Amino acid sequence: MSGRLAILGLGPGDPALRTPQVDAALQRASDLVGYGPYLDRVGGARAVRHGSDNGEEIERARLALRLAHEGRAVVVVSSGDAGVFAMASAVFEAIEHGDPAWRDLDVEVMPGVSAMLAAAARLGAPLGHDFCVLSLSDNLKPWELVLRRLRAAAQAGFALALYNPHSRARPWQLDAAFALLREVLSDTVPVAFATAVSRAEEVLAITTLGEARGAQADMRTLVLIGTEATRTIPRDGARPWLYAPRSQG
Amino acid sequence: MSGRLAILGLGPGDPALRTPQVDAALQRASDLVGYGPYLDRVGGARAVRHGSDNGEEIERARLALRLAHEGRAVVVVSSGDAGVFAMASAVFEAIEHGDPAWRDLDVEVMPGVSAMLAAAARLGAPLGHDFCVLSLSDNLKPWELVLRRLRAAAQAGFALALYNPHSRARPWQLDAAFALLREVLSDTVPVAFATAVSRAEEVLAITTLGEARGAQADMRTLVLIGTEATRTIPRDGARPWLYAPRSQG
Repeated sequence: MSGRLAILGLGPGDPALRTPQVDAALQRASDLVGYGPYLDRVGGARAVRHGSDNGEEIERARLALRLAHEGRAVVVVSSGDAGVFAMASAVFEAIEHGDPAWRDLDVEVMPGVSAMLAAAARLGAPLGHDFCVLSLSDNLKPWELVLRRLRAAAQAGFALALYNPHSRARPWQLDAAFALLREVLSDTVPVAFATAVSRAEEVLAITTLGEARGAQADMRTLVLIGTEATRTIPRDGARPWLYAPRSQG
Repeated sequence: MSGRLAILGLGPGDPALRTPQVDAALQRASDLVGYGPYLDRVGGARAVRHGSDNGEEIERARLALRLAHEGRAVVVVSSGDAGVFAMASAVFEAIEHGDPAWRDLDVEVMPGVSAMLAAAARLGAPLGHDFCVLSLSDNLKPWELVLRRLRAAAQAGFALALYNPHSRARPWQLDAAFALLREVLSDTVPVAFATAVSRAEEVLAITTLGEARGAQADMRTLVLIGTEATRTIPRDGARPWLYAPRSQG
């Protein structure tokens, strides 16, 4: 008797941005597995909670798979969308290198509103045309590769959504990324820092590439970088809107 | 007395993937503006429906802004997420070039589950690491720019989510894109065609870049292209899972 494993994203924070599919899975679950602060955001569910520290993704994935294999109804909880720099990849990595019986489990990934989509919506439509999504973390890839991807994306005219822009161990990374981008793009290109979007502590800051500073980001920040085509609409007494025009080139 | 304008995404199709925020806005609306088939997906709302053909985005945006300026509670309806190749950019474009009073309207973009996130979830976690999102349409940008962006993204090791892969007027485009990508990537790189995800007529097809053919896509298809790092997990009697490993380079 095989159990079930749902890998889901809670969205950016506000429960009004969480899908009914996700809510139903949380209600059905016997076990919730995830990073502690994410589990704290799940109210009501009567499941056993298996919280863990950040950075223990593969151990967390294996625990979830073992529980599902025992016949439990397991939910792996991510923030945002589970498939974007979150737990879905870790679970499939654990499956590929783990117990062959895990391939027979009923595994379902449930999509969510990702941090980048929530941030873009609060700012206007800065991701309304071609864009790239990039993690700035060099925990699992060489920093040179991060820089190469940044340069390639900016040179080709993609807007950028940067995940993991801030690392306590390497606080210089985001400034290094801005410095590289200033070699490719005009100083006037819009840059937005979207922190804790949709939560009580939400902070949105809009600046330009010339003025952007790494210290404006923390671990809850999504950094959006426009293109030469990105437009800024000023407003009286309100944050400007940013958008990517539909026509490019 | 100024009205309100919400620009929202219904998600990929299944109402279980639509956020409560969006449902509440649809219930509150006095007027719904959108592409006819998307409005048909909205049940229950008692609003006046202003359906239009596809391709009339700016006219549709202006109508919505005029109605909001008259004090109506207007909702502009997109599929997926409103900010990804959808109506949000068109509305801000109309605002920038339209009646200055439109800048004082209460405009809110409400994010949704985008087609790419829904497609990725059904396939595993193919967008679990760095990726680029690109419209293959050359209605509003030169085809040479599409090709340049495709090449830059593939060379830098980004996975790709391709919107608008099929055009009735230019059915050769997707095959031309695959031909270009085969110059940069191995024939074994996984390619997935995700059509009408989460709807009754959903079709998922997984192949390789060497075998991929443009005729496998129609106007409802999202094409996902992996990288040299993308892994395929075979399963007995079931579709394989695709995922992007967390470690790259």
